[in-house]
Amino acid sequence: MGIIHKFSGDEARFDWQGVKAESYTSGEVKGVTKRVLVGPEEGAPYFVMRYFEVRPGGWTMLHEHPHDHGVLILKGKGEVTLNGKKQEVSRGDVIYVSPNERHQFKNTGNEIFGFICVIPNRKLVEPQ
Amino acid sequence: MGIIHKFSGDEARFDWQGVKAESYTSGEVKGVTKRVLVGPEEGAPYFVMRYFEVRPGGWTMLHEHPHDHGVLILKGKGEVTLNGKKQEVSRGDVIYVSPNERHQFKNTGNEIFGFICVIPNRKLVEPQ
Repeated sequence: MGIIHKFSGDEARFDWQGVKAESYTSGEVKGVTKRVLVGPEEGAPYFVMRYFEVRPGGWTMLHEHPHDHGVLILKGKGEVTLNGKKQEVSRGDVIYVSPNERHQFKNTGNEIFGFICVIPNRKLVEPQ
Repeated sequence: MGIIHKFSGDEARFDWQGVKAESYTSGEVKGVTKRVLVGPEEGAPYFVMRYFEVRPGGWTMLHEHPHDHGVLILKGKGEVTLNGKKQEVSRGDVIYVSPNERHQFKNTGNEIFGFICVIPNRKLVEPQ
């Protein structure tokens, strides 16, 4: 059965009813919060739709993996590294990260850098 | 290789560099425009990320199919039908439409009703 997660945030902080926030900070990732909007809990067999927020000065992991990413920037601005090449991105931009492409997202602004990031369900991706 | 589609629109009309718009009006769909942001042209093997706009008074098809939808409302407001139940949705809301769930999106406002809609690559979905 379908599910609706009503938006319960505001312009400054996005949030949704029935969606948990998980925050990460380590040596490899700084100031990142993830919310799974559609995924296994909703019963979705094929893809996972997540919303990430990166705090000013924060970054996601610099890494690569067999699954790809479909990204849409919803808030703020940042720098995307794709195979060693850095590019500025801001609200509205779409980024496709191919399988096994080394990538990282950094917040280069003074407000939250927020983006949707779609991945395939891990069961569909063969180990490489 | 990764691809960036820079946002080239404004608040009133979303658009992206390198992305075509396809408009539909028939007996079954009214005033709908689709943009494929990430999909086969970007080389994405697992999912397709589309942006739909529905004009005031317009609607998408009332139908069901084996693939599911992950939807995020980006603009305006509308009414979603899920298995015969109608619910109001607006900017920021997330809707998951399960496989084979009958659904329709209608614009009930005076501005564009715009949303992201993710589907799996059709090769992953077995005919049912």
